[in-house]
Amino acid sequence: MSKEFFAGIEPVRYEGPDSTNPLGFRFYDKDRMVAGRRMEDHLRFAIAYWHSFTWPGTDPFGGETLLRPWMQGDDAMAMARQKADVAFRMFELLDAPFFAFHDRDVAPEGRNLSESIDNLNAIADIFEAKMETAKVRLLWGTANMFGHRRFMSGAATNPDPEVFTYACGQVKAAMDVTHRLNGQNYVCWGGREGYETLLNTNVKQELDQLGRFLSMLVDYKHKIGFKGPILIEPKPKEPTKHQYDFDVATVYGFLERYDLLKDVKLNIEQNHAILAGHSFDHEVRLAYAMSVFGSIDINRGDDLLGWDTDQFGMNVQEITLLMHEILKHGGFETGGLNFDAKIRRQSIDPQDLLIAHVASMDACARGLLAAEKMLDEKALEGPIVDRYAGWNTSEAKAILAGERSLEQVAGAALSLDPQPRSGRQEYLEGVLNRYT
Amino acid sequence: MSKEFFAGIEPVRYEGPDSTNPLGFRFYDKDRMVAGRRMEDHLRFAIAYWHSFTWPGTDPFGGETLLRPWMQGDDAMAMARQKADVAFRMFELLDAPFFAFHDRDVAPEGRNLSESIDNLNAIADIFEAKMETAKVRLLWGTANMFGHRRFMSGAATNPDPEVFTYACGQVKAAMDVTHRLNGQNYVCWGGREGYETLLNTNVKQELDQLGRFLSMLVDYKHKIGFKGPILIEPKPKEPTKHQYDFDVATVYGFLERYDLLKDVKLNIEQNHAILAGHSFDHEVRLAYAMSVFGSIDINRGDDLLGWDTDQFGMNVQEITLLMHEILKHGGFETGGLNFDAKIRRQSIDPQDLLIAHVASMDACARGLLAAEKMLDEKALEGPIVDRYAGWNTSEAKAILAGERSLEQVAGAALSLDPQPRSGRQEYLEGVLNRYT
Amino acid sequence: MSKEFFAGIEPVRYEGPDSTNPLGFRFYDKDRMVAGRRMEDHLRFAIAYWHSFTWPGTDPFGGETLLRPWMQGDDAMAMARQKADVAFRMFELLDAPFFAFHDRDVAPEGRNLSESIDNLNAIADIFEAKMETAKVRLLWGTANMFGHRRFMSGAATNPDPEVFTYACGQVKAAMDVTHRLNGQNYVCWGGREGYETLLNTNVKQELDQLGRFLSMLVDYKHKIGFKGPILIEPKPKEPTKHQYDFDVATVYGFLERYDLLKDVKLNIEQNHAILAGHSFDHEVRLAYAMSVFGSIDINRGDDLLGWDTDQFGMNVQEITLLMHEILKHGGFETGGLNFDAKIRRQSIDPQDLLIAHVASMDACARGLLAAEKMLDEKALEGPIVDRYAGWNTSEAKAILAGERSLEQVAGAALSLDPQPRSGRQEYLEGVLNRYT
Amino acid sequence: MSKEFFAGIEPVRYEGPDSTNPLGFRFYDKDRMVAGRRMEDHLRFAIAYWHSFTWPGTDPFGGETLLRPWMQGDDAMAMARQKADVAFRMFELLDAPFFAFHDRDVAPEGRNLSESIDNLNAIADIFEAKMETAKVRLLWGTANMFGHRRFMSGAATNPDPEVFTYACGQVKAAMDVTHRLNGQNYVCWGGREGYETLLNTNVKQELDQLGRFLSMLVDYKHKIGFKGPILIEPKPKEPTKHQYDFDVATVYGFLERYDLLKDVKLNIEQNHAILAGHSFDHEVRLAYAMSVFGSIDINRGDDLLGWDTDQFGMNVQEITLLMHEILKHGGFETGGLNFDAKIRRQSIDPQDLLIAHVASMDACARGLLAAEKMLDEKALEGPIVDRYAGWNTSEAKAILAGERSLEQVAGAALSLDPQPRSGRQEYLEGVLNRYT
Repeated sequence: MSKEFFAGIEPVRYEGPDSTNPLGFRFYDKDRMVAGRRMEDHLRFAIAYWHSFTWPGTDPFGGETLLRPWMQGDDAMAMARQKADVAFRMFELLDAPFFAFHDRDVAPEGRNLSESIDNLNAIADIFEAKMETAKVRLLWGTANMFGHRRFMSGAATNPDPEVFTYACGQVKAAMDVTHRLNGQNYVCWGGREGYETLLNTNVKQELDQLGRFLSMLVDYKHKIGFKGPILIEPKPKEPTKHQYDFDVATVYGFLERYDLLKDVKLNIEQNHAILAGHSFDHEVRLAYAMSVFGSIDINRGDDLLGWDTDQFGMNVQEITLLMHEILKHGGFETGGLNFDAKIRRQSIDPQDLLIAHVASMDACARGLLAAEKMLDEKALEGPIVDRYAGWNTSEAKAILAGERSLEQVAGAALSLDPQPRSGRQEYLEGVLNRYT
Repeated sequence: MSKEFFAGIEPVRYEGPDSTNPLGFRFYDKDRMVAGRRMEDHLRFAIAYWHSFTWPGTDPFGGETLLRPWMQGDDAMAMARQKADVAFRMFELLDAPFFAFHDRDVAPEGRNLSESIDNLNAIADIFEAKMETAKVRLLWGTANMFGHRRFMSGAATNPDPEVFTYACGQVKAAMDVTHRLNGQNYVCWGGREGYETLLNTNVKQELDQLGRFLSMLVDYKHKIGFKGPILIEPKPKEPTKHQYDFDVATVYGFLERYDLLKDVKLNIEQNHAILAGHSFDHEVRLAYAMSVFGSIDINRGDDLLGWDTDQFGMNVQEITLLMHEILKHGGFETGGLNFDAKIRRQSIDPQDLLIAHVASMDACARGLLAAEKMLDEKALEGPIVDRYAGWNTSEAKAILAGERSLEQVAGAALSLDPQPRSGRQEYLEGVLNRYT
Repeated sequence: MSKEFFAGIEPVRYEGPDSTNPLGFRFYDKDRMVAGRRMEDHLRFAIAYWHSFTWPGTDPFGGETLLRPWMQGDDAMAMARQKADVAFRMFELLDAPFFAFHDRDVAPEGRNLSESIDNLNAIADIFEAKMETAKVRLLWGTANMFGHRRFMSGAATNPDPEVFTYACGQVKAAMDVTHRLNGQNYVCWGGREGYETLLNTNVKQELDQLGRFLSMLVDYKHKIGFKGPILIEPKPKEPTKHQYDFDVATVYGFLERYDLLKDVKLNIEQNHAILAGHSFDHEVRLAYAMSVFGSIDINRGDDLLGWDTDQFGMNVQEITLLMHEILKHGGFETGGLNFDAKIRRQSIDPQDLLIAHVASMDACARGLLAAEKMLDEKALEGPIVDRYAGWNTSEAKAILAGERSLEQVAGAALSLDPQPRSGRQEYLEGVLNRYT
Repeated sequence: MSKEFFAGIEPVRYEGPDSTNPLGFRFYDKDRMVAGRRMEDHLRFAIAYWHSFTWPGTDPFGGETLLRPWMQGDDAMAMARQKADVAFRMFELLDAPFFAFHDRDVAPEGRNLSESIDNLNAIADIFEAKMETAKVRLLWGTANMFGHRRFMSGAATNPDPEVFTYACGQVKAAMDVTHRLNGQNYVCWGGREGYETLLNTNVKQELDQLGRFLSMLVDYKHKIGFKGPILIEPKPKEPTKHQYDFDVATVYGFLERYDLLKDVKLNIEQNHAILAGHSFDHEVRLAYAMSVFGSIDINRGDDLLGWDTDQFGMNVQEITLLMHEILKHGGFETGGLNFDAKIRRQSIDPQDLLIAHVASMDACARGLLAAEKMLDEKALEGPIVDRYAGWNTSEAKAILAGERSLEQVAGAALSLDPQPRSGRQEYLEGVLNRYT
C-alpha cells in the first residue's frame, strides 16, 4: 500500500540552486560540509508522525479532507501498520535522518491502559525492525495526554489524582518505548496543563502537581539509563486558555522552582513563540542565555492569526537567525529540527506532503549556509562585541562581578555625563538582507 | 494657585449608593469595616504624581491638551513647587491615604546629576513639611531612568557601563528620598530594560547587568535600614519592543536566577498584564502562588488596543476578582492600589481629574464589598475545594510529597479508568454575576 | 430518551433577584413590560441547534467529551430524530421563544444532494409537527456549506463552478425549509468564503462570485414570497485565514457594490466583532448607522485568545450597551438574540447546558432593564445631544447639507480660534457603572 | 548648515550586488529597464518630510534623542528654512525623485490660521525655488489636522462645527500649496477622525461630516484644476481607539456611500494594514480589485507590537508581492513609494538616516526585479489562471453574468458530486522562495 500512496514518486535528490523541480533539493545537500559538520548532521531533520500521518485534515469548522487510505478502515491495528509502512516510505523518499511521535499517533488507544500499552509496544516492534535497515533514527518520543476526554482538565495538573496516576502509567510506557528505540530526547508538551477559567482553578496546587510529575519522570529516566534530556515544549495557550508552560522564561522559572534545571531542557517552536508574543529568535536566544536550549520544532505561524497554524517554515531570514544562534553555540547536541508542521487541509495530493517538506528543508539549508557566512564574517557578532566593549574594563568587570557597592558606583556617577551611541538598527537590518 | 485650580470644588464625601453626584462617593466609605479592617486600610489608594500632575496630554500624534498652569512657566523649580501645591490639594480633596512618584515627576532634571539630586531633595523638603500636617503618606518612590536620551538603550542594561553607573547614582538618590519620606515600598519599572532589536543585543550580558543592579540596590536598602520591599513592575513591551520584566512568571524566574526572591516582590498592573497576554487575575494569582505579591497599579487597558492606555479602572467584576484574591491572602501588607491611570487627553477640565479618581475608587470599593461577601459565602472557594478534594487522601498526598516513584504510581494506573467531572464554568460565571 | 436526558429537571421559572438557584431566572421575567413590550418580545432568545445539540465537545487537540446519547448510534436519521426530541424538550424547559439551525445540524448528509435534501425535509416534517403544539418559533435557518470537504476552498467563492452550483442546490433547499417553517430570517455565514493564501487566490473573481450568489438568493426569496431579510454574518477569519465578510463596514461596502442593500442585513456576533478588532457596541452602532442592522448572535469571546470561543455572554455591561442601542432604535424587527454559544467542553453534565442558558438569559435581562433606565433618564443620550448641539445652527446645517463650498467655509475659518471642550469620558464611564 | 549635517557623505551611487558599502546601492540602479520603464520610474520613491526632518526621536515614555540642529533654536521660521536646506540636501544625496509633506512639517503653526498659512506659503516659496534646479518633485501634500489640541476630538468629525470650519480653512491652504508645487496627489489621513469612546460619540453624524468634508474637497480640487486624485490613507486605530478609515474595505464602503469613488483613491501602508489584521498584500489586492488603488506608504510594522512602529521596509519577500501586484496592473499612475518610515530613536547619527533609506530602497529594488521575473515566467499567475479555469465555460460565464436563476442552477446541482482539488499552497510558497 505504502508504495502506492506515493506512486510514481522518486526519492528526492539534491539538484542545485537552479532546479525548478519541487521534488528536488536546491540547497539541502546533505554531505556538504558546513562549519565542521555535514549539513545533515547540522540540521538533523525529523518528520513528525502526527501531522504527516495522523491528522485527517479537519479543523474546528470542517471534517476530514485528506482521506488517507490508512484512516478509512475499521481494524485500528491494521491501519496503524499500514500507516507505519507509508511513514517509513516517506522517510526514505526524503532521506530523513530522524522522526518523532506521540504514543497515540502510532498505535490506537485500547480498551484500557494495558491494551493501549500493548498496542504501542506492538507497533514499536515494527519500528524496531524497520529501523534496523532504514537510516532513520528517533529524535524523540512523547505521550499524547491531551486528546482523550479523561484529560479534558489536564493530565499531571488534573484536579483528580486518578488522572495524574493514569498519566504516570502512560508516560512511563512512552518513555520505555522511546528508550527502547534509542530516542535521543523525550518530550513533554503540556497541552492541557493549564486552565480554561481561573474560577475553578487552584493554580498553586496544579503547579506543584506538575513539578512532582516531572520530578518523577526525571528520576525514572535516570533509573532506566535514558541518556537524553527531557524536553518541555512551551506554549502559551490553545487548546486551553492558559498553559503553565507559557514561554521559555516561564518554564525556566518553573524548572528553577522545582529543581529540574539539571535534567530538563526546552523544545522551542516558532508558532508557540509568536502566540506568546515573542519572536522565534528571542525564545532561542533566551534558552541559550539560560542554558536550557534543547531542540526545535521548525514550523511557522501566521502573524495575523491567533491560533497554532503549524505551517511549514519557509521564512529564510527567520531561519537564518535561528541557525546563526545554534551555530554560534556549536550546533545541536541531542536536538534537531522537528517538522511540527502540517500541510494545509486543501493540500490533498500525496505529493503535497513531500513538496512541503522539500521546500522547508531547502529554506533551512539556505538559512544554515547564510548563518555560516555571517558568522565567518562576524557580520552581526562583530558589531555586538564592539557595542558592549566598555564592559571589558577592569572597573566595569568589577561592578559586574559584585565587587562594588551602590554607594561606590553612585559616587562615581556624579561626575559623569554619558553620551548615547547609535544603535545602528537599520544598518544591521541591511547587513542581514545582504546574506538572505 | 492650587486652590484656584480646583476652584469651587468641595472635598469629596461618601454620599451613599443613590448619589448621582460625580464628585461624591457611592461606595467608598472609608471607615466602613470590611473583613476586619477599615475600607481605607484595605484599599490603600495612592495618587500617581506622574499621570495626574506631570503628563501634559500628549500622545504620539498630538501635543499638549491639558495646559496645566504649572507646566506653562520657565522657572522649572517654581513650577515644581506649584505642582506640589496642586497635588497636595488634590490628595486632600480626595482624602487619599497615599501618593507615589518618580524622582523626575516631582523635580526637574538639573544640569548634571548633582543638581538633579539637589532639585529632588529640595522638593522632598517641601513634601516632608506638607506631610507633617497632611494625612497622605508615601506608598512608594521610584526613579525615572527611561525618559532622558542617555537611557535610550536602557539604564542597568545599557551597553555602556557609564550609563549603568549613572543609573546607580540616580537610584541611590531616589531610594534615599523614599526612605526619608517613609515610603512603604521602592519600585523599579524597567521601561527600557529590554531591546529594540536582537540584532544589536547581547541578552545574557544585559540580564546579568540587571541582576547585578538589583542586587546592589537590595544591599543598599538593608544598609540604610529601609524596611519595605523592592518591587519590580512587569511589563512586556512599550516603550521597547521587548522588556526583560515581561510578566510575573518571567520576573519570578529572574529573581530565582539572581537570588533576589527574599527582598524583591512584584507590583502588578492590569494594563501590563493584558499586554503580556494574561488576565489581571492570572498575574495576581501567580504572584501569590509564588509568594512574590507586593502591590497593585490599578488601571485598565483597552482589550482591543496594543499599547498602554492606562485608563482608570472601572470594571467592577475584574476588580472584584482582584480584591477576592487579596482578601483571601489577608489583605495588603506594604502594598496598595496605586492609580497608575491617566485621564483621557480630551478630559481637559480640572474636575475630570477628580471625577475619574472618584469613579474608580467607587469601582474598587464595590469590588471589595463583593469580594468580602463571596469569601464569606465561599461562593468560589467552596467549589474549588470540592474540585480538588481527591488530593486529600493519604495516597494522593504521598504522591505529591515525593514519596512515590513513577513505577509505583504507573503500576496503580493499569486498573484505572478515570471519569471526567464537569468543570462547571458557566455555573461559576453565573455565581460571579450574582455578586457583581 | 429526551426526557431522560434532562431527567429530574423542572422547567426554569422566574424566581426573583434573590434566588440562588442556577436553574431559576433572577431577572428574566418574560411578561414584565419593558419599553412598551413584554421582555420576551424584546429579547427574542433563540437556542442554537448546532452548539447545543450537534457539537460533541471536540477541539483541535481533543476528541469528544460530551458523549451525547444521540451521537452514539449508527443510524443517522434515528439519531437526528432523537436529537430533535431532546432539542424540543430543552426549548420547553427554558421556555425559549425561538430556535435556529443549519441544514446539516438537524439532518445528516446523504449519499448525494438529493438524499441530503430528503433527509432535511424529513426532519423538517418532524419540526413542523412539533411546532404546532410547542411555543417555539424559527428565528432563522441556514445552510452549512463549510464542513464538508467539497467546500474546503469555499462554496460560492470556490474556484470550481461545480461547487458553486452545488451550493446553489443546497442553499435553495435550506431556504425552502426555512420558508416552510416560517423562519423570520435567512442567514448566510461565509465560513470558507475567503482564502488561506493569496498566492492561489483571485480576489476579484471570488468577490464577484459571492455577489452573484447572493443576488440569486435574493431573487429566489422574492419569488417564493419569503418575507424576512437575508442576513450576512460578518467574521474576519477562522476557519480561513481571511473571510470576505470581515466586519460590518466591509459587508456594507460589499452590499453597496453588488446592489444588495435593500434585501440583505447583518447578523452581528460579539466574538466575531472582537476578532475583527472591534467592540460589540461598535459593530452594532455601525450597522444601525448604515441601516443594515438585522439580528444578534449573543455570545462572547475571550479578549486574550485569537479564536472563536463562542462562550455564553455573561458581561452585563457589554449587553447593556447592546440593548441600549437596540432599544434606542425601537427594538428588534425580525431579529433576535441567538445563542451562538457553546458550553465549555469540560461542562459535560446535562444541567450545564441549561445553567449556561439561564445565566446568560439573566445577564441579557439585566442589560435590558439597565438600558431601559438609562434611556429613560437620558443618561448617555443627553450628554451626546449636548456635545453635538453646535451642529443645530442653520449655518452648520447648511454646511452639512452641502450648501457651502470649501472656499466659503475656509473663508469663515480665518477669524476662528476654536476651543476644545472636555470629552468627559471618565464621567460617562462612572455613569455607566451606576446602571450596571 | 545643511552640508555640515551630512558632512563628509558623498551622494549614494549604484555599486552592484557585491558592494558592502551601506551608503551604496546594491540593487537600486535607477536607469535599469524593468518591465518597460526605468527602475526609478517604477519605484517613484518619496522622502517623507515628517519622519526624516520633523520627528525629534520622542516616544510616549521618552524625550528627544536626535537633537537635530534645526530643532534647537527659537526662531521657528529660521529653523524651518534650515530644515528645508537639510531636506533638499538629503534628496540630492539619495537622488530621490519625490518628497511628501504635511503643512505643519515644513512650516510652523502661527498665532492664528492666517499666519499659519502665511508661514506655509513662505516655505513653499523656498521649495518652489529649490525645485526649479533640483530633480525632486512633490508626490503629495497633506494637512496635519491631528497634532494641535483644537483637533483633539477630530477635525472633520469634530462635535464642534467651528473645528470643522477651521479644518476647511487649513485643508484649502494645503491643497493650494500642493497644487502650486505640482503635487501629483493630495492625501488625507484621518488620524483623529474616529473616537476614543462610543459613550460620547454619534457615529452616524460623524460619518456624515466626514463625507461632506471630502465632497467639498473634491469639488474644490476640480475647481482649481488639480489633476491628481485625493488619497485616503486607511488606519484602524492610533492615535484614537477607532478610526473611521479602518482599512481598504471600510474606506471603499465609505466612498460608495458618499459617492466619492470617482475622485478618491487610497494610499496604503504596510503598518496600517497589519494593525487592521490584514497582510499588506491583501490590502493592495483589494484596492486593485475595487479600483481604488492609488499609492503606497512603504514601511513596516512589528508583527508582535500593537502600535505603529513605522520602521523602514526591509522585507524583500513582502515587497516582492507588493511589486508583483503593482506591475501586474501596469505600474503606478500618480502614486509612488513614500517612505513613511522613521529611523529608530536610537539611530542618532546623521548617516543612519541615509543608511536606512538606502537599505530600504535596495529591498524595494530587489522586490521589483523579483516581481518582474515572476510575472515573466508566470510563476504565480499561471497556477491561478489554471485554478479558476472552470469559470471559462459558457455556462459558468452565464451564471456569473446573472443569466441563470437559483432554481436553474440548483437543478443542475442534483447530479453533481464535485471533487476538491489541491490548493497547492506549499508548492507556491516554495516557488516564491525561488525568486526571493
